[in-house]
Amino acid sequence: MSGNSFGKLFTVTTFGESHGPALGCIVDGCPPGIELSEADLQADLDRRKPGTSRHTTQRREPDEVRILSGVFEGKTTGTAIGLLIENTDQRSKDYSNIAETFRPAHADYVYSHKYGFRDYRGGGRSSARETAMRVAAGAIAKKVLAAKGIEVRGYLSQLGPIAIDPARFDWDQVNANPFFSPDAEAAEQMAEYMDALRKEGNSIGARISVEATGVPVGLGEPIFDRLDADLAHALMSINAVKGVEIGDGFAVVNQKGTEHRDEMTPDGFMSNHAGGILGGISTGQAISAHIALKPTSSLRLPGRSINASGEAIEVVTKGRHDPCVGIRATPIAEAMMAIVLLDHLLRDRAQNADVSTDLPVLADVDQGK
Amino acid sequence: MSGNSFGKLFTVTTFGESHGPALGCIVDGCPPGIELSEADLQADLDRRKPGTSRHTTQRREPDEVRILSGVFEGKTTGTAIGLLIENTDQRSKDYSNIAETFRPAHADYVYSHKYGFRDYRGGGRSSARETAMRVAAGAIAKKVLAAKGIEVRGYLSQLGPIAIDPARFDWDQVNANPFFSPDAEAAEQMAEYMDALRKEGNSIGARISVEATGVPVGLGEPIFDRLDADLAHALMSINAVKGVEIGDGFAVVNQKGTEHRDEMTPDGFMSNHAGGILGGISTGQAISAHIALKPTSSLRLPGRSINASGEAIEVVTKGRHDPCVGIRATPIAEAMMAIVLLDHLLRDRAQNADVSTDLPVLADVDQGK
Amino acid sequence: MSGNSFGKLFTVTTFGESHGPALGCIVDGCPPGIELSEADLQADLDRRKPGTSRHTTQRREPDEVRILSGVFEGKTTGTAIGLLIENTDQRSKDYSNIAETFRPAHADYVYSHKYGFRDYRGGGRSSARETAMRVAAGAIAKKVLAAKGIEVRGYLSQLGPIAIDPARFDWDQVNANPFFSPDAEAAEQMAEYMDALRKEGNSIGARISVEATGVPVGLGEPIFDRLDADLAHALMSINAVKGVEIGDGFAVVNQKGTEHRDEMTPDGFMSNHAGGILGGISTGQAISAHIALKPTSSLRLPGRSINASGEAIEVVTKGRHDPCVGIRATPIAEAMMAIVLLDHLLRDRAQNADVSTDLPVLADVDQGK
Amino acid sequence: MSGNSFGKLFTVTTFGESHGPALGCIVDGCPPGIELSEADLQADLDRRKPGTSRHTTQRREPDEVRILSGVFEGKTTGTAIGLLIENTDQRSKDYSNIAETFRPAHADYVYSHKYGFRDYRGGGRSSARETAMRVAAGAIAKKVLAAKGIEVRGYLSQLGPIAIDPARFDWDQVNANPFFSPDAEAAEQMAEYMDALRKEGNSIGARISVEATGVPVGLGEPIFDRLDADLAHALMSINAVKGVEIGDGFAVVNQKGTEHRDEMTPDGFMSNHAGGILGGISTGQAISAHIALKPTSSLRLPGRSINASGEAIEVVTKGRHDPCVGIRATPIAEAMMAIVLLDHLLRDRAQNADVSTDLPVLADVDQGK
Repeated sequence: MSGNSFGKLFTVTTFGESHGPALGCIVDGCPPGIELSEADLQADLDRRKPGTSRHTTQRREPDEVRILSGVFEGKTTGTAIGLLIENTDQRSKDYSNIAETFRPAHADYVYSHKYGFRDYRGGGRSSARETAMRVAAGAIAKKVLAAKGIEVRGYLSQLGPIAIDPARFDWDQVNANPFFSPDAEAAEQMAEYMDALRKEGNSIGARISVEATGVPVGLGEPIFDRLDADLAHALMSINAVKGVEIGDGFAVVNQKGTEHRDEMTPDGFMSNHAGGILGGISTGQAISAHIALKPTSSLRLPGRSINASGEAIEVVTKGRHDPCVGIRATPIAEAMMAIVLLDHLLRDRAQNADVSTDLPVLADVDQGK
Repeated sequence: MSGNSFGKLFTVTTFGESHGPALGCIVDGCPPGIELSEADLQADLDRRKPGTSRHTTQRREPDEVRILSGVFEGKTTGTAIGLLIENTDQRSKDYSNIAETFRPAHADYVYSHKYGFRDYRGGGRSSARETAMRVAAGAIAKKVLAAKGIEVRGYLSQLGPIAIDPARFDWDQVNANPFFSPDAEAAEQMAEYMDALRKEGNSIGARISVEATGVPVGLGEPIFDRLDADLAHALMSINAVKGVEIGDGFAVVNQKGTEHRDEMTPDGFMSNHAGGILGGISTGQAISAHIALKPTSSLRLPGRSINASGEAIEVVTKGRHDPCVGIRATPIAEAMMAIVLLDHLLRDRAQNADVSTDLPVLADVDQGK
Repeated sequence: MSGNSFGKLFTVTTFGESHGPALGCIVDGCPPGIELSEADLQADLDRRKPGTSRHTTQRREPDEVRILSGVFEGKTTGTAIGLLIENTDQRSKDYSNIAETFRPAHADYVYSHKYGFRDYRGGGRSSARETAMRVAAGAIAKKVLAAKGIEVRGYLSQLGPIAIDPARFDWDQVNANPFFSPDAEAAEQMAEYMDALRKEGNSIGARISVEATGVPVGLGEPIFDRLDADLAHALMSINAVKGVEIGDGFAVVNQKGTEHRDEMTPDGFMSNHAGGILGGISTGQAISAHIALKPTSSLRLPGRSINASGEAIEVVTKGRHDPCVGIRATPIAEAMMAIVLLDHLLRDRAQNADVSTDLPVLADVDQGK
Repeated sequence: MSGNSFGKLFTVTTFGESHGPALGCIVDGCPPGIELSEADLQADLDRRKPGTSRHTTQRREPDEVRILSGVFEGKTTGTAIGLLIENTDQRSKDYSNIAETFRPAHADYVYSHKYGFRDYRGGGRSSARETAMRVAAGAIAKKVLAAKGIEVRGYLSQLGPIAIDPARFDWDQVNANPFFSPDAEAAEQMAEYMDALRKEGNSIGARISVEATGVPVGLGEPIFDRLDADLAHALMSINAVKGVEIGDGFAVVNQKGTEHRDEMTPDGFMSNHAGGILGGISTGQAISAHIALKPTSSLRLPGRSINASGEAIEVVTKGRHDPCVGIRATPIAEAMMAIVLLDHLLRDRAQNADVSTDLPVLADVDQGK
């Protein structure tokens, strides 16, 4: 396929422009017999949808998803699952002025070159609106994983200069504030920071963390489809992501071997610097990944650019934009990790379903957060 | 395929264990008519091979590659290119003691669980020895790219606490020291650091940077096969890599939109925070990526572990190991970037060969390093 | 992906059950800049749709297709094209009696075993209704091919005992009778035959032929993705197909080399026994393929079977069924050939866009039909 | 990949020209823990190899295969299996005269056009010599299948005008004559026929049949990767094949529904016209397929052609060629069916490993041959 599909056995293919009639998705390879309803998907879609706080775009998209196939009498049938979300809040007139304009740090310039022209309404296919479908597909993956005891959860770990304090980490806070911050105090600081930023007309980057627990030992396919490599692929494919880390990530550059290695004892792994992946294969520990999202490119502060004729112009982006795309990215990152994990679960059992061992299985000795 | 292949149209499939009879590779999809000889591959293989300085493992592998198919009368024919490197320096006895041992931070534990048992000779398939074949395949990709004016180059940007100084950056230094450091002074500090580290019996992490110049606008396939996503996949699949950045990478977390956005003028892009990729598609600027490599896990300093019976043991790894796997990783990272770029060049022209535009093409305004 | 996708670069992924709310399709990899509207797809959908003559099922499905993405201002944008057909004539009550029944020669038994249960309404996913989406996707491929001078056309070459007479072959007749017969006289015999068959309550097989003209030399990827191999895959994937032939097909079993070989002269190829494909690669001659479709399995003549409890039962299928599934299969076969050809056109130019030769190109010396 | 790979989870990638230094193959996705040695592969390679009777080419290729990876202590490890066969009997001088010649019915013309030039030594990559690697890979698949109670066997069912007599069908005869004929009497007629044909300097087509027993219900992935569709792909990809049938194949064109449908009773399926596949999914009955192979194109009887300058020439092919390529094709067809079945076994259990039913499983009521 040409780029709109992800996953080898649990395969997600999406379509849809931000201002076209609808977004859609086909989820292929879902195991049969899983209870599934639209409500299962809606919960995560509502976490991602815009307009739920003053810190995100005020566009109003209900993002109501319909399941069009692959589910019968409340259960997945094993056949392709078709999903559809109608676009309702299309104000194309907001965007007509940018048809001949290349907004800086947007995909306008590259799409126009690659395809000869572009759907300029709201970013078209390059809009982050497409991630709604990732979230819907990810919710299906989460449901299947949950039946295997695997849970995927994410949180915002840093917004601009404000990092969460591990000492105040509380999973219960994550869905209790508009930032997905596990640190309630940091969330308050973020709210203030965002209020000032909106006034300024500027935007800011963010760091999101995702982790999975309950993952069995053995997921990941050497050499090129390692679990970490596929996670990197999945997470880097999210709009605005510029960096991916597994476990300690870039901190390993200045770690010594004695510091980094996760020692094993009969009680379990003594640490998890590796982020739950060795040699590209899950260790049974918590899988952890982190991503960096760049600041939103749509700003009302003027920026230099050129138009389609190559003339110098000044660009000011009006309209309704997220001043921090990272804020709504937590459910998207969760979705992508869930899709990768389910895909690898299926791949592993394809090849290794007959393997049985009595090798010791190590618990993850609790390190706190 | 099950994990040993990379690339959709320019496809590299490898086999081989560190202590088996040979390593091999099939390169599929190479355009025909490209001049190619074993010497083209050997140059990069020699840059990666062990034993060229006191700072890498003293194993002696000549890594002589043979081209077994796909080249006729000195030119690629368009058919599958078969490559083979015989293993010559196999001392399996060095490893016999680890058959029942799970070395900490190695893949021993996960391979044993996944497949029920493992080839324990020198890490088997999980050994970094397999990267020799990536380098050989990457050298083919580099040759094809060179004919299109695209050059891929890498360097070590940090070794443990020693980062290169951008003010002393000199591409000509990169192949003039054993570290691929573009900063000659830093290279001297690294040599000292490594001498002390070897005495200590410890290991250290590193950061490698790769960039490509001459890349046309338009490479990368939205949504999931963005150029950055595929680069992340490719680079994270290299042994020991724990993080991948594109352009400014994790620094974007605390950047404002006005700082990050690369403004455009009729003279060109005024900066390159994006690393040459917007919306997952190349902008025509230099593509830049950075990776973090963890410290080598094989240490002669004892570490706690368990054996296959679940008993606590102490592991001391003797034998010949790189104290910093990052040192030899520069050609590997270059190879993976070259493979990704060529694959995307082919993918782009498959779909868009008929596109013609008179849109302006921007130069990359030189920023220095 | 798990089976609902076809094509490597021009990729078609479908979903939808015969009695679910809708059928859908994502076409990925379509070149940009091609004029495309719903009317382009509707023409072929109308050729396939049921109820247009007394010889096909009297179900009434308007099969109105909507384009939901990938087309902007009347042209393909290069992004994923989403298609949707709402199901309107769902009479699920017709099928409720078969929930616990395995109809002979249907997929009921195998779906139930494979997935543990099945959507029993009208065959669910195994219904030939899914082919509507192949026809829609194929119509897109045909449009792109037409711009390259490639035309794909099919016809019914035999219905039960009635074969067309090559001496009466007339392309203009194909769309002028309900059978897609190029032989008007044979079409009349077929009408009589079908009238008798309907009275009898029985069904019959058919043979469909497809050909493509204007195909350039060089499409097809050795070794496994030969043009003929991919055609065989595509055509055998159509419901009810039990055989595929390229060129002379099974007649070659008793041909001598001197008979079979298509000699070349400066005037062109002297024959086309090979069906336009040598070594898996197109020769520039007309590509020809033939398929055999089994008789419809839904009969009102009782057949022995078992139910889900393993008890012997007698099955009589009421409802509205095609007595010859082959009759409506011509547009489906055309669609699949068009998809394969476009996919290979893109694949070939990905690898070989830089090839230029002054080798002689042979015309196909006209052999009549 | 570009065409040299087959299989989605059990993936076979091959390289090698008929007159290059070696042929090779990478088998990816093989389940671990399967006993495997070179002798397992050699048995089938010896059945395919040339020069074992006067009816095949007198080239002498020992076709000795080496396993270079993926097997440790006599068992598959789950990692990529590398295979190598060195070419020993290369007489390139036999072929030098055809460098500028397009032999009729060969791939010379199409390879030259597609790639701009070609390796003209013995057909290069288009030579049937590449099928040796399919046989080796297929032998691995057969071993894995055997452990699941699945057996794949083939035979020659017709050679030119001589068809086997079902009344004399005897599996024990198949490997007892040089034709893989299950009918000893027909084999004698074939020997006479071939002797006359060789004198004449001509060649002839053949029909090969393959079947698999012990296949569980449920293999095959709707919609496009049906078991029959993938078999058609696999079998049509074999050199010289022009037709593929499943079960009754083209005979269904003139079958009525009451004739064709395989009725089920509590005792089992009453017939197997479907060839063991319904709706693209295995029924648990014997899977049967048939292929048509064209006569060898290399003849010493002169044929008209053109050279690379477009001039009319007369071609006479000397050298050592099979007068009937079908004779050695039986092990190749078996290999391809085995690869498809194992691939689908893995695919099915990836998605459906958790399915459990107490649905009745039908035996295949023995129909004789």
